[in-house]
Amino acid sequence: MDVDKKYFKNISNRERAIFEGAITMGALFHQFIGTPVNLKSASNLEKSIKIAMELQPCIDEVEVKINRELLEESKSEFDYVSLSGEMMNVKVISNYDGKKAVLMMEYIDELKYPLMYVKDIYE
Amino acid sequence: MDVDKKYFKNISNRERAIFEGAITMGALFHQFIGTPVNLKSASNLEKSIKIAMELQPCIDEVEVKINRELLEESKSEFDYVSLSGEMMNVKVISNYDGKKAVLMMEYIDELKYPLMYVKDIYE
Amino acid sequence: MDVDKKYFKNISNRERAIFEGAITMGALFHQFIGTPVNLKSASNLEKSIKIAMELQPCIDEVEVKINRELLEESKSEFDYVSLSGEMMNVKVISNYDGKKAVLMMEYIDELKYPLMYVKDIYE
Amino acid sequence: MDVDKKYFKNISNRERAIFEGAITMGALFHQFIGTPVNLKSASNLEKSIKIAMELQPCIDEVEVKINRELLEESKSEFDYVSLSGEMMNVKVISNYDGKKAVLMMEYIDELKYPLMYVKDIYE
Repeated sequence: MDVDKKYFKNISNRERAIFEGAITMGALFHQFIGTPVNLKSASNLEKSIKIAMELQPCIDEVEVKINRELLEESKSEFDYVSLSGEMMNVKVISNYDGKKAVLMMEYIDELKYPLMYVKDIYE
Repeated sequence: MDVDKKYFKNISNRERAIFEGAITMGALFHQFIGTPVNLKSASNLEKSIKIAMELQPCIDEVEVKINRELLEESKSEFDYVSLSGEMMNVKVISNYDGKKAVLMMEYIDELKYPLMYVKDIYE
Repeated sequence: MDVDKKYFKNISNRERAIFEGAITMGALFHQFIGTPVNLKSASNLEKSIKIAMELQPCIDEVEVKINRELLEESKSEFDYVSLSGEMMNVKVISNYDGKKAVLMMEYIDELKYPLMYVKDIYE
Repeated sequence: MDVDKKYFKNISNRERAIFEGAITMGALFHQFIGTPVNLKSASNLEKSIKIAMELQPCIDEVEVKINRELLEESKSEFDYVSLSGEMMNVKVISNYDGKKAVLMMEYIDELKYPLMYVKDIYE
């Protein structure tokens, strides 16, 4: 089956890159939110999220940074915390046939919200 | 803050609708996969996923159908099963300033994959 | 297969009730953390979590209360928030052959932690 | 605060080990089900689940094995699959004040269910 012809002919290559990057952003957030994490485990978790999410279709690269200060501040009596949107800074680079979209997720204090947006598009 | 001006001026309204719909698709899948479900609880879960995911930005409507046959076939000795991508059929309608995107997720046997795609765009 | 004889003969009925209740507590938290929720959707989500988690083995009853004040306080510019452990108060009643365990999860400010514990056991 | 005195005096040390191990089993399953995985990423994911779940209270050790044959068999056109209960074999060793519980999760074909049980208790 030619998946692209059958299912994606009504959007442009640029739109396809945006579409696939956005799926991965939403997926990443809702898959990993809640994972136990602390200062010692943070870099392992960052890398593991990267490796898992780079498997998704049309994803060139995923970078995850977990805010170490927030991690330390919010840690419980039991020396870890559940990963939350406030702590994460994510970059996803998606690519469809040479059109690249750079998507970001960052927590915007003023909005009290982990905002996902398209930072750049390269054609 | 004018979020749209600050963060979204490099994509079109049509691309924005695709972007927001795709985030919600990825989010929905990875949030609810694994939820215990059976024939009795399926319609409640469908509605609850709909209500939760319609809260996301620019989402007009979410429809979830859980495949009752597959639910029945795959149920365990304990009379329920963990929700999987194979069982779900999802429609998400996103809307940004009048540009509407209709996104679908359906399990394609030939691909062995719950494919997300853009079915229609109304401008 | 006699599951109980094959897999559970090395723990008492009282321990089995604790075991099954604790699984459901851990499962509930990590399944639903991150779900979009606001004041309007909270009661629907509470009920849906209850219905899903009561499907698990040996579970008599699940009660979920989402803290409305915290929900309102923490809501984002987009009028909803991701469900977090801080907002949830959960009771799980498990039962194995008449031994009942009442398990609680509540956020303890002093510990900065959503503590799960066994409140009562009825034999 | 003496958490143990305040919240756990109505269960024995042995029951506490069972309780904490069971929470971690339920948590592990519902946190990581749905994660994208393939043959290349499986060992990274196994380790990352181990590291995350060993942070939970009273957990000495977690071992996760993802079934490589099932992974290969069930992989989609896109060369990965969502982690499911069928693929996982998990051991959790919990410990409270010297009482150790060894908990297992394994998929039992006859039950069509990823069964969690207590394999051994050391006192």
